[in-house]
Formats: sequence, C-alpha cells, structure tokens
Amino acid sequence: MKRILPSYIEHLGEVTPFTYAWDMTPPTHLAPRYCSFSKPGNNKLLPNLREAIRQSDLRDGGTVSFHHHLRNGDYVMNMVMQEIAALGLKDIRVAASSIFPIHAPLVDLIRSGVITAIDTNYMVGPVAEAVAHGLLHKPAVMRSHGGRPRAIETGVLKIDVAFIAAPTADVGGNINGVHGPSACGSLGYAVADSQYAKTVIAITDNLIPFPIAPISIPGTNVDYVVVVSKLGDPKGIISGTTRITKDPLGLMLAETATKIVQGAGLLKEGLSLQTGAGGASLAVAAFMRQEMIKRKIQGSFALGGVTGYFVQMLKEGLFQRILDIQCFDLDAVESLRDNPNHIEGCASFYANPLNKGAAVNYLDVMILGATEIDTNFNVNVTTGSDGMIMGGSGGHNDTAAGSKLSIVVTTATRGRLPIVVDEVTTITTPGETVDVLVTELGVAVNPRRKELEPALRNLGIKVRDINDISAEVYRRTGKPKPFSPGKRIVAVVEYRNGQIIDVIREQGR
Amino acid sequence: MKRILPSYIEHLGEVTPFTYAWDMTPPTHLAPRYCSFSKPGNNKLLPNLREAIRQSDLRDGGTVSFHHHLRNGDYVMNMVMQEIAALGLKDIRVAASSIFPIHAPLVDLIRSGVITAIDTNYMVGPVAEAVAHGLLHKPAVMRSHGGRPRAIETGVLKIDVAFIAAPTADVGGNINGVHGPSACGSLGYAVADSQYAKTVIAITDNLIPFPIAPISIPGTNVDYVVVVSKLGDPKGIISGTTRITKDPLGLMLAETATKIVQGAGLLKEGLSLQTGAGGASLAVAAFMRQEMIKRKIQGSFALGGVTGYFVQMLKEGLFQRILDIQCFDLDAVESLRDNPNHIEGCASFYANPLNKGAAVNYLDVMILGATEIDTNFNVNVTTGSDGMIMGGSGGHNDTAAGSKLSIVVTTATRGRLPIVVDEVTTITTPGETVDVLVTELGVAVNPRRKELEPALRNLGIKVRDINDISAEVYRRTGKPKPFSPGKRIVAVVEYRNGQIIDVIREQGR
Repeated sequence: MKRILPSYIEHLGEVTPFTYAWDMTPPTHLAPRYCSFSKPGNNKLLPNLREAIRQSDLRDGGTVSFHHHLRNGDYVMNMVMQEIAALGLKDIRVAASSIFPIHAPLVDLIRSGVITAIDTNYMVGPVAEAVAHGLLHKPAVMRSHGGRPRAIETGVLKIDVAFIAAPTADVGGNINGVHGPSACGSLGYAVADSQYAKTVIAITDNLIPFPIAPISIPGTNVDYVVVVSKLGDPKGIISGTTRITKDPLGLMLAETATKIVQGAGLLKEGLSLQTGAGGASLAVAAFMRQEMIKRKIQGSFALGGVTGYFVQMLKEGLFQRILDIQCFDLDAVESLRDNPNHIEGCASFYANPLNKGAAVNYLDVMILGATEIDTNFNVNVTTGSDGMIMGGSGGHNDTAAGSKLSIVVTTATRGRLPIVVDEVTTITTPGETVDVLVTELGVAVNPRRKELEPALRNLGIKVRDINDISAEVYRRTGKPKPFSPGKRIVAVVEYRNGQIIDVIREQGR
Repeated sequence: MKRILPSYIEHLGEVTPFTYAWDMTPPTHLAPRYCSFSKPGNNKLLPNLREAIRQSDLRDGGTVSFHHHLRNGDYVMNMVMQEIAALGLKDIRVAASSIFPIHAPLVDLIRSGVITAIDTNYMVGPVAEAVAHGLLHKPAVMRSHGGRPRAIETGVLKIDVAFIAAPTADVGGNINGVHGPSACGSLGYAVADSQYAKTVIAITDNLIPFPIAPISIPGTNVDYVVVVSKLGDPKGIISGTTRITKDPLGLMLAETATKIVQGAGLLKEGLSLQTGAGGASLAVAAFMRQEMIKRKIQGSFALGGVTGYFVQMLKEGLFQRILDIQCFDLDAVESLRDNPNHIEGCASFYANPLNKGAAVNYLDVMILGATEIDTNFNVNVTTGSDGMIMGGSGGHNDTAAGSKLSIVVTTATRGRLPIVVDEVTTITTPGETVDVLVTELGVAVNPRRKELEPALRNLGIKVRDINDISAEVYRRTGKPKPFSPGKRIVAVVEYRNGQIIDVIREQGR
C-alpha cells in the first residue's frame, strides 16, 4: 500500500512518488566536482570561523553541511550557525547528516529566518520538534545514510560550504577522527561533503604537523582550516559502551531473532551482520555470538555504526573485519585506530544505492528497530504515532534493502501504544524490504519471503500472520484515535533512491 | 629560453606552449564521473579477461589504462593487450602510468595498429624505442605523475576501461596492494583511473573473502573482477633494496647536497625530503640521516616512491611519516602494510597541480637526477642526448615545482658525454623550478635563488656560474655533434599544468 502524495510540494517542486525499492534511474554521469588549485606556500589556516565563512563567500540562500560523528556532544554546528547568523546571512539550508538535542540553539535561527531549510537523515530533540510544529519555512528533506551521498554525488543536494569537525587536522587540511581530545572515530558521513562542496572548511581542536596519519579525508579536498578550543563534549561524543538489555522479554526476542537467522540458513561460515547500538539490538549480537562460538563459525564482517560489543567479537575472531561508518563508543574509536581489520568506510561506500555496489549489498543479516510496523511490513522510525519527528532512517532503509535477511525486532506494544499497526504514521522503510518481524506475540514472515516459513516452524518458532498479530495488539491496547495532523507538509521522507516515500504534516502547536 | 613549438600537431590539435610553472587555468568544474549502480547479488566476478573486455564494451578507438606498480615484473598490461588484440580491436590508446622493458610485446601491437596512441609518464625499453623510431601512429603524450591525474580528473584524458592490477581483491571489487603473492605496496597511481574510467576491471591473483583490509581502492569504483594465475614476476615487482653508492664521487656530491640543505636553512626540525631510488639519491638520504642524528633533528615526512632506506629512517624516528605513492622494495611494502605512520597516497594527492594542495607543495627538499641539465637549469630526464626516449618526468617536474628547494645532483660528464650542456635535448623540467645544481666541478645556484649563495659559500661550497661549469664540461668532452632528429613529432612532453613544454622528433631508423 503506497501513500497518496501530492504531485507538487511548495519549495520542493514536483514529487516523484515511491514505486519500489530498486527503481533506480541513474544519470549517465554524477555531478562534476568543483575545481580549484593551491600553490606551495598558500596558507589554509584562518584565524577564526568568521573569517573562514567570509572567505567561503557564502550567500543568502546558500547551503551549508555538517556531519554528525560528534553526535549529542557536537559544538560545531551551533558555533558555525551562530557565526553565520552574526554575519547577517539569511535563508540558509542546513544539510546535516543528523541533528541532536544539543542543537537546540538552531531553533532560534529557524525562527529568525537564518535557517529556512533542513536536509537530514535523522533528527531528534528541539530542532525536530520545531520542524514538526511548522517553524521551518520550507519542508525538511529526510533522507537515509545512503540516500544522502547519492543526493550529493548526483547534484540533487548542492553544498556551498561543508563544515567538517576534524578531531585531528594539519595545515594541509588532512583530517582524521581517531586522534585528539574530541576523537570520534570514523568520519564516514563527511566524505561526500568534502568531495562535492564548493568550499570545505575543517574545524579542529587538534592541529598537528603535516602530514597526519591516518588520513581519513585528504587535504586535497579541504580549502581552509580553523582551530577552535573544543569541538565538543566527549561525554556526548563517546557515549560509553551500551549494555546488553537485561529485560527478559528483550532477551527472548533476541534469541528468537537468532533462531530466524539459523532458519534462513545464514548462521554459517562467513556470516555478516549489522545491528543497531541499543540494548535490544546488542542482545541479538550476544545471542549470535553464543551460537557462533558453539558452532565454531567465523563471520566475515560487522557493518555500520560500531559498538564495543562488535569490537569484542572482532578480537575474538568471530568477525574478520569491521566496516565502520560511525563509532558509538570509545572501544570502537580505539579499535578503529589500532586494529587494521577495523576499517573506515564513507557513507557512499556503506549504503549509496547509486554506486557500483555499497557494503549493504553484501550484508547477510540486518537487525532493525521500529517505532511502528504495519501489516504491510512498512516500518516507521521517523515519527512517533503522534506524528512528532523523533528519528529518521539513518541506515534503516538502506540496510533493509541491501541485506539478504532484514529482521525487525520489537515488542508488539510499548506501554499502551500499539507498535504493530494497520498503517504506520510515517513510512521510513518500505515493507517489501522487510523480511521478518519478531515480537512477543509471535513471528510474522513477509509473504514475499514465504519460503522461510517451514524452516522457522521446524525450529519451533511460532509463525503468525502479521494481521493476526496486529489484531491481537489492538485487542490489548484498543484502537487509538488516529493522529490527525495539520494540512501543511513540514517534511518529506525521501527514500534512498530519491523517490518520496512519505510526507510529514504539521503538528498542532 | 623556451622551445619554439609548432602551433598545431596532427592527432593532438592546437598546441598550448609552456609559459611558466604555475600558469594554471582551472576550469570551474572537474569532469563528471560516470554513474551506474549494482543491486545486491549482482556478480562482479567474470571467468576471464576476454569476457571482462567484452562486457566493458570497449570499441575501436577506445582508451585503456594501466598503472605501473608492478614495474618491470608486470604481466598485466601484456595479457590485457593480447586479449584486446585477439578480440580484433584496433586503434587503441594505451594510457599507462609507466612502461618498462617487460612490455616489449606491445611493439608488435603498435606495428599491427592495435595500439595507435600512448599516454605515459615514463617509458624505457623496446616500447620507448619503437615510439622514438616513429612506429606509433599518433604522437605519444608524456606527462608527469601529477599531470596524469590532472588530465584524468579534468577530462583531458578520457579512459574507457581501466585495468587495475590488484594484488588482493574481493568479490566486491575492493583492492589493496599490500597482501598476496604479487604484493607491490601502494596503488596510488591507479586511483584516478578507478574514479574516472567508464568501466573498471580489477585483475587479481589473490581473491579473498569480502571485505579485504586495508582497502586502497573501494569496490564502489570497480565493475568487474577477474582472477588470473599470476599478476607478475615478484623479482621484477620488488627489486630488492637498492644499495647506497660506494663511488667516492657520488658520495662527495651527496655530501655537498646535504650541505646545501643546511645552507638553505632547511636542515632543521620538521624537514621533509624526497629522493629518487637510485644509489646516488640514497647516498644523499644517508648523509642527511647522519646530520639529522648528529643534530637531533626529527623530520616530518619522506615522500614519493619509497625504499627501505626511508623505512629505516621512519623506524629510527628520523621521519614521523612516509607518504607512499609507490613502493620500490619489499621493506617498503611491509612497512606500508604494518606501520600506521607509513601511509598510502594517490597520485593526485601526491602531485596534481590542480587540486587544493598536493603533498609536493609541502615538500622542503627534493633531490633530482638529470640526464642533461642546461645553462638555463632546464632538466632532461626523458631522452638521451641522442634523442632516444629512455625515461620521462615521473614525479620529476612535480616535485621540482612543489618543493622549497630542488637540487639536481649529477656528475658533470658521464663517460665522454657532457651532462651540463648549453641546451638540453628535451625539456622535462623547466629551469625556473630547479634551484641548485651539484656537480664535481662545483655547485651552481639558479639566479632566481641568488639569496642562497652567501650561505653556501660560508659553508665552503664552491659556487660557480652554471655557464662556467658547462664551458669546462665542453673543454673536457669536446662539443658533440648536435643530435639531428627527423622532422616528424613522435611524442610531446606535456608539463604538469597541461602546457606542452617540448616535443620529441623521430629517431633515424
């Protein structure tokens, strides 16, 4: 079931609605990169951010970009946007790979018209709420971690100035994320920005002699370097190892998910796996680990946002490699720095559907979360059932489309809220890319993957029709009054292939 | 003194003659990269080279590219070109970063019209001789290691199919050069090809599970993977450590060069250095090492083609990093593989004049060789004084232009041949980028760098006018009969900025 979408959205233009996951119409060529040159002795080091913004020749109506590896510890986006405001610039598009509660100061800049547009893959906190409440002049564009580099590389998302938080940099503009007081590990989400933006400004609190090692982003992509006192709050950057859930229900679901991997014939030598960083996802990793040890299986790779748990599995030889686009904790940062089998990848390498084969295409098993999942297996991780923006795809719809087996693991209800529903409030990930749902009320297999059912039943898994699960959910929770949003479209959800899969309408204020 | 060049050359078109080293006219944009996509389950592995060439849709008149990290051990270019010939293709342009004696079988393909054009940065052996003798239908284009990625990135050199010798690869097309039986280390010269070619074919003799680590060239750039039994002859790939010259004259010149570095005020903390891989160049490194130890100086980086001698200096802490575009010996390969301060760079990062600052721009000292140097400090490393092609710029004119101090170290005569001459047979590197000449007949300082002279004299160095040195050379050798070439232009020497700095005319047969 597809959404009925408007054919035209003001400030965005004609709408190309979602058809199916691999409906790709590649242009013959990518957008051309800007060209400029630098002579020996040219100085990239500027005294402060304001001077760098001036040199970039950013104008009203321009687009600036940011990456989110400093997560909820990031000072950079706030300080840059304050300077942009102080310079009197208006009508700026902020293309940030993710936006967190720490970015609350941007709300005032949205109100004052400094920021009028946002492109992001994930947002939570005051900025997300401001967008949902209709404060932003133009509809936000919500992409996936793979859709963003697609949009940048094809010229759909044109960046005037990319601001790159650089935990370590040198005067040549070479950058890495593994050294320095604000070390965050991988810088994978900033790479496309550094390649395609008209001007690239590295902001660092750790300038060391040329050339640094490793080099994650080469200085040949970087125009200016600015030193600031602090990129962010390490406590927010590196959240510390998430612990595996101790909730018995969560553990039961994780165990079931592991059985499903087995049932699908994927619990074997060379297994590759991605999970989220939450306690429930890590529980799946923990059960997989047990089974891998028991069966003497060595996996090939773990992918995506990386936690200490996967680092541990790499050390134990349970995986041969980790492909890292983002580090979630200090163990991951240290492993990326020190372990040659833990390697950094950029967002395009990770998940861009429009290149010669992103890493997600080689992924066996993806463990997905869900805020809602509907009887067509569509998943929402973008808004609450009340329509409030509180997330976004990140790599969700990328990995679902790429992996051989995508499993949504969730409780069927959360408090009084139904999670398995008739129709999700917002589609983030189309049902055709979701293979199995695991809940405490049973397991549902997507009819497209019917061939999985016998093996699951053989393993003693209770396989049910998703409609039955949903019906039972509603019997327990009652059918909540459907969310009735305002008319105005405050955001669009762009599927990884560039088609619009859903819109988000204004929240009541 | 500039060469008088024809305004038009058949098959090449209008000639833009060399003006000065940093005369750059950047286009606003680089050439756009090709775009294509790959779904999960797509198979890149093809059964053989012929099938890969068929899939690439290479046509008559097309351009194929190769990199030279396997040097005189390379089997790949020969086997690919044989298949291309067997498929009946004609009029092919071979864009190879260098060509060696092992590529002799290409001469027959030049004769038969399979190969009608060559772009390269360096060539020696039968192919070079065939070009000099006028066998190639179109004039060869000889670039520098930095000029080649400039030409590729700007679309001047359009590649239909890049063939990348991959000492290690996986089914996703990820490539590195540090593992496998044909390990050659850095793959820096192949990177631009992988980014800009229409089709990219990796050829490997070491296919291991996805994903390999490290990844030098990502599979997102690679269309097909072909496994062959052997990429090359390890003896030719890894030549074994070159020894420092024992010739007393060579040692004396090296000692003088080291004094000049001191005189120029560059023998200090943070020094960066590139030398060639020959015994005389290594002798300079050896003297530099002594002085650095004596003065307790730590250098910043060594650059370029890397030998075990620099690996040793890295281990000793005399350099903090090595930036490696090509490994000359096994020590270099092992160090690149194992030492995190020994890092791989691509040719554009190394030396492209048309990016935001290549590594050569940060180089303090470059020790250059010369086949001839003239009284305007122009250097020839492309042809002999008899006009025979036997080299090419490689990084010669890139590093001369980028470094703070470029020193040509050579004997003033070689046997009965004058080396310091009135006018070089072929200009590879313009005199304006060469700072000092060191010979056994004295040291000459380029008048553009007159400020260096007092310090050199203070150090007891015999500084002479280069005209006096040349005159003394001619008194000793006699003035040889000037080389009188045929009329036909068989090759052009394109300076790194894209301007034509010289032409090479046909040898008598």
